[in-house]
Amino acid sequence: MISSKYIEQAVDEMASLQGVGRKTALRYVLDILGRTEDEVEQFAAALVEMRKHIKLCSVCNNISDAQICHICSNENRDHATICVVEDMRDVMALESTHQFKGLYHVLGGKISPMDGVGPSDLHIESLVDRLHQGTTKEVILALSPTMEGDTTAFFLYKKMQQHTDLKISTLSRGVSVGDELQYADEVTLGRSILHRTPYENALS
Amino acid sequence: MISSKYIEQAVDEMASLQGVGRKTALRYVLDILGRTEDEVEQFAAALVEMRKHIKLCSVCNNISDAQICHICSNENRDHATICVVEDMRDVMALESTHQFKGLYHVLGGKISPMDGVGPSDLHIESLVDRLHQGTTKEVILALSPTMEGDTTAFFLYKKMQQHTDLKISTLSRGVSVGDELQYADEVTLGRSILHRTPYENALS
Repeated sequence: MISSKYIEQAVDEMASLQGVGRKTALRYVLDILGRTEDEVEQFAAALVEMRKHIKLCSVCNNISDAQICHICSNENRDHATICVVEDMRDVMALESTHQFKGLYHVLGGKISPMDGVGPSDLHIESLVDRLHQGTTKEVILALSPTMEGDTTAFFLYKKMQQHTDLKISTLSRGVSVGDELQYADEVTLGRSILHRTPYENALS
Repeated sequence: MISSKYIEQAVDEMASLQGVGRKTALRYVLDILGRTEDEVEQFAAALVEMRKHIKLCSVCNNISDAQICHICSNENRDHATICVVEDMRDVMALESTHQFKGLYHVLGGKISPMDGVGPSDLHIESLVDRLHQGTTKEVILALSPTMEGDTTAFFLYKKMQQHTDLKISTLSRGVSVGDELQYADEVTLGRSILHRTPYENALS
């Protein structure tokens, strides 16, 4: 029931965004309609410019303004540790913890036969190439604890077993900080008592 | 924790949309980042083109591709009835019911002293001008049943009282179709028994 073909087009485009329906798209479009022409041009230019200038880092496949991203080119970081993640959002999440000082490797997804994503669709070969350089001491598999994430982690683990001197670790699993025990799910709670840690470790 | 100034800018723009926070904005931006340059340009152009070409109808202030909107210029509609609404979304909502064949008048908001919106900020003078032309027989005040909506309706009612031969009506209020009586609020239920209607009216 939209009377204008211009609004119809704009709503179509907005509704193509992930998780946006036509009602939400219309709300966004009417918001934009209330701005000046200059503001709308600035809005549009920000998107076009971003798409034009953003590259993937040639080392770790993270998004970057330059050929090599600011993490890979930072000499102060620990170049012997590589943290393998699914996508760039995971890098942002881990960086915001300020707890990790090594490098990353962005796979660009996880193995998911249901969605037709196999190992060859991910940046796995470039990870293997990085390991062949011999400077890496530890690989952290920081993948989501879902079926697809676990599958991907196991595939990578098998692939890296030839490097016998390489330490392969994964994120610790257990009850979340701030969670009530009674609401934690059974699998998580069961594993967290099985893999209990010395109390001193939990202090820091 | 975003490493690129282009992404930072795009997220800022997306987060300026009504109801969008920075996390949602980042999700939209990463979605756009996954498209081809052509697709992103098309996305951006749809917004810029819309803002450039959309006008307000010179009669009813509804959004329109032309000087006079397709509702006001439609000879088959009832030009003697004007339905007064807050904004263009209300026009879309009423049009999608297919129950109203008259014209609209979009106020562009409602009187709300808390938000600094007074009668002079709304398209009220142009409504008065339309009534002075003498072709209007009925005005329907289709404003939201909130304090601001009621205030605006009362203000308009007072303003239109000089036209003694003008019929002024408002949307009927009562229990929603499909609602359980026990969950209807007391005010609505109280009013709906006070203003009960002949059973025959409820059949159509």
